[in-house]
Amino acid sequence: MTFPKNAWYVAATADEVADKPLGRMVCGERIVFYRSDAAHVAALQDFCPHRGAPLSLGRVCAGKLVCGYHGLEMGCDGKTVAMPGQRVGGFPPIRAYPAVERYGFVWVWPGDATLANADDIPVQPWHKHPDWAYGGGLFHIRCDYRLMVDNLMDLTHETYVHAGTIGQKEIDETPCKTSVNGDEVVTSRFMHGIEAPPFWKMALRGHGLADDVPVDRWQICRFTPPSHVMIEVGVAHAGHGGVEAPPEHKVYSIVVDFITPETETSIHYFWGMARKFQPQDGALTDAIRAGQHKIFSEDLEMLERQQLNLLTWPERPLLKLNIDAGGVQARKVIDRWLAQEQSACSPT
Amino acid sequence: MTFPKNAWYVAATADEVADKPLGRMVCGERIVFYRSDAAHVAALQDFCPHRGAPLSLGRVCAGKLVCGYHGLEMGCDGKTVAMPGQRVGGFPPIRAYPAVERYGFVWVWPGDATLANADDIPVQPWHKHPDWAYGGGLFHIRCDYRLMVDNLMDLTHETYVHAGTIGQKEIDETPCKTSVNGDEVVTSRFMHGIEAPPFWKMALRGHGLADDVPVDRWQICRFTPPSHVMIEVGVAHAGHGGVEAPPEHKVYSIVVDFITPETETSIHYFWGMARKFQPQDGALTDAIRAGQHKIFSEDLEMLERQQLNLLTWPERPLLKLNIDAGGVQARKVIDRWLAQEQSACSPT
Amino acid sequence: MTFPKNAWYVAATADEVADKPLGRMVCGERIVFYRSDAAHVAALQDFCPHRGAPLSLGRVCAGKLVCGYHGLEMGCDGKTVAMPGQRVGGFPPIRAYPAVERYGFVWVWPGDATLANADDIPVQPWHKHPDWAYGGGLFHIRCDYRLMVDNLMDLTHETYVHAGTIGQKEIDETPCKTSVNGDEVVTSRFMHGIEAPPFWKMALRGHGLADDVPVDRWQICRFTPPSHVMIEVGVAHAGHGGVEAPPEHKVYSIVVDFITPETETSIHYFWGMARKFQPQDGALTDAIRAGQHKIFSEDLEMLERQQLNLLTWPERPLLKLNIDAGGVQARKVIDRWLAQEQSACSPT
Repeated sequence: MTFPKNAWYVAATADEVADKPLGRMVCGERIVFYRSDAAHVAALQDFCPHRGAPLSLGRVCAGKLVCGYHGLEMGCDGKTVAMPGQRVGGFPPIRAYPAVERYGFVWVWPGDATLANADDIPVQPWHKHPDWAYGGGLFHIRCDYRLMVDNLMDLTHETYVHAGTIGQKEIDETPCKTSVNGDEVVTSRFMHGIEAPPFWKMALRGHGLADDVPVDRWQICRFTPPSHVMIEVGVAHAGHGGVEAPPEHKVYSIVVDFITPETETSIHYFWGMARKFQPQDGALTDAIRAGQHKIFSEDLEMLERQQLNLLTWPERPLLKLNIDAGGVQARKVIDRWLAQEQSACSPT
Repeated sequence: MTFPKNAWYVAATADEVADKPLGRMVCGERIVFYRSDAAHVAALQDFCPHRGAPLSLGRVCAGKLVCGYHGLEMGCDGKTVAMPGQRVGGFPPIRAYPAVERYGFVWVWPGDATLANADDIPVQPWHKHPDWAYGGGLFHIRCDYRLMVDNLMDLTHETYVHAGTIGQKEIDETPCKTSVNGDEVVTSRFMHGIEAPPFWKMALRGHGLADDVPVDRWQICRFTPPSHVMIEVGVAHAGHGGVEAPPEHKVYSIVVDFITPETETSIHYFWGMARKFQPQDGALTDAIRAGQHKIFSEDLEMLERQQLNLLTWPERPLLKLNIDAGGVQARKVIDRWLAQEQSACSPT
Repeated sequence: MTFPKNAWYVAATADEVADKPLGRMVCGERIVFYRSDAAHVAALQDFCPHRGAPLSLGRVCAGKLVCGYHGLEMGCDGKTVAMPGQRVGGFPPIRAYPAVERYGFVWVWPGDATLANADDIPVQPWHKHPDWAYGGGLFHIRCDYRLMVDNLMDLTHETYVHAGTIGQKEIDETPCKTSVNGDEVVTSRFMHGIEAPPFWKMALRGHGLADDVPVDRWQICRFTPPSHVMIEVGVAHAGHGGVEAPPEHKVYSIVVDFITPETETSIHYFWGMARKFQPQDGALTDAIRAGQHKIFSEDLEMLERQQLNLLTWPERPLLKLNIDAGGVQARKVIDRWLAQEQSACSPT
């Protein structure tokens, strides 16, 4: 196994689990998600105990998941509630997974349910906060989830993959610094007195700030296990303190990345941007979402082809340069989690 | 092997084997079908003994199958007849399969040819009978053929999968009865004094009968090995004896299902309906065929996803409820055939 | 391994390797091709030593291949030249393959580089010769490269596969003669006093010759290892010496076939025609290319389905008739090369 299972993963956006059940594989588990009541989302093995039909093809009636094949009614604990003309007491249960709707996402814990604590779900302070706006999307990518973590923890790739939008030569030329605080890995880069790239010029103008003066730019990538990466990004007019500048001199946002393994070589990638400027401007949210969609699309082919290469040459070692430190340290944290999970499963 | 090979299977509809040869895999065998003369259909291994080209890419000339690659002429016994510029006496033969055109279908026996007896092909009394009309079609479905047998031997699924057309709550609520007579398995359900569902209202009107009075409805599913399921279905105005009512009070038909394994996890599904009302009404035949096509399409995703689930969780046992008795008993018959076939192959 | 690796293969047409790098698998090797300067094409393992990204997704800057992920600059010897902010001296090299642009193609040697000698690339006398014109194309086909060699060394298939264009009954009826001269295999067929088929009637008219008189027609197929097949084809007005007739009585051309294994069961097939009539007529070149594209397309399904059959019945022997002698002898030459390559790799 290459991913921890005792962890909270984003399984879906909240609006994906509406009237109908949603089937989705997370960490190799086929799971059906549905709303058992207004306040709760349930997550079950996507397997009807009757004849193995996928429950995700069924429907939700009064909070019960009804199998679309022969009408078995399943409860959110994985125990059959009823079935026309049958006594269901002896029906074998199916697995129920801890699941929580929070911060606009449905979170699932694919591992040992007794260890799940919803308090461990990482707080998303921007969610429904009047000072923030959020827009995002979902990509399916055929690569190991750790390649996506590497991608986000080394933004020098922006200079090459995203040359026309957010890339600029200074990213490449400015060294980054990586630090590890327990399970958190932080890679940061600060650029001073540079020209803002197109995306940030647009943001400056939108915030009523001049876009033709030198700026300080920052990128602070924060990895937390199993595979969440939050990136603080922004620019401030030069000479006002950079990331510490007062609000009237800067524009900034958080790139939100939840990377959920589907299998060992494929992911559901939930990406978005929470911004702290013009939060009421819905058109701006749409424009940023569209721009981010385009930018992140540029990574897809690279990641899938890189994955193919790694499968073709499994024996070739990869380099671990200073720019790779973020990904390298993140993998060390992941490995520690995996070892811990492994030892917890072993006989004492 | 999960399917008997010493059995007659429907390989094609008669019109599929016309001027050109037809290549189709049946029970894991790649077979080419063609008309060796007006009265006969031949079935051969789809492999030219010259260089292995598929004979199904060739053409038929005066009853001989001519390879489309280099012109080898093949006889219907699997022996090469001629080839330009060659003596063909020593050419290795290819396998010939017993094949018969009957009742509008091409039947093939993929197993031991010495055991094939065309008299064992199940009689289809509706074929070309003036009192009957027939319409049908063909689906390719990626599932074990026994999942389709299960589907047809437990019609409670109609209430859920076909809720808008032939399903109704009473099917679910009325117990079925299953009996076994030698190799035949019969599951029947009789509903009394109910409202006719949309399909049967249409049929009643077409037959000049009121559609707004209570009816008796019946479903009698008959499985015979290897995988044929004929279902007698109909409604009669209540109070006239149900299935035994005289013709002027009822409408009825036979749902014809020939399920032919392609591989262990895929099938050619020949479906149709033979009806004993308005047999001359070609437009009605077309309308019923279109309706049945739509209804049976609703089963496809369910069956394919169920198959995927069973491959994902091979160790999970399935339930065998009373409603499953038809499928369960059918599998017992199949298993008996398989065991018999196995022991016939074993050294004594 | 079914193909020699110590050999020159056509990897691409010259115009496929222009401003951008080209990724292509040859003999199981993932290779990136690019122009390192105006006069040279380089071929490297398609794997960035940094993190395994495919270099073919990068770009070419001043003759260096720049990785599209993080900007590593690769030299044409497989050694990293530079990378922003890095010392690259210790970076592991990637494999460089001998590659040469010649005769309008990019040639690559996927085996032991120390054995490569560009003088062994087969001379294409028609290339840029004022008396000749050339047009061609590229197909990807899922078959063993030897099936394509067989196809081209036995033109009796034209009678069946290409009945409407270049096939005619006389090909089938006229015996061919096969000879072996060292590594070269030649299969030739001479037809006398026949009617020209449509393609050659068009050529006769284009050359100002009558198309309604008997002609002599010839087909001389020359195989050289690893998998090149050049076919001299033409017609002359009967009674002037056939293939030896003086130029004013004949039209002729060379069918050019370079068959490059991608994997053991797929090929890049570079086909074309070099003709020695109306060389200045560009519209004729286009018409011939379009015609050849259509004709060679007719082989695709046959070859792919034949491959499928051979994988289905690996134990079935194929016949080796007189018409197959060209392909059979070509395989003997290939086997000799393979054995030689094998023994060179073995310890002494």
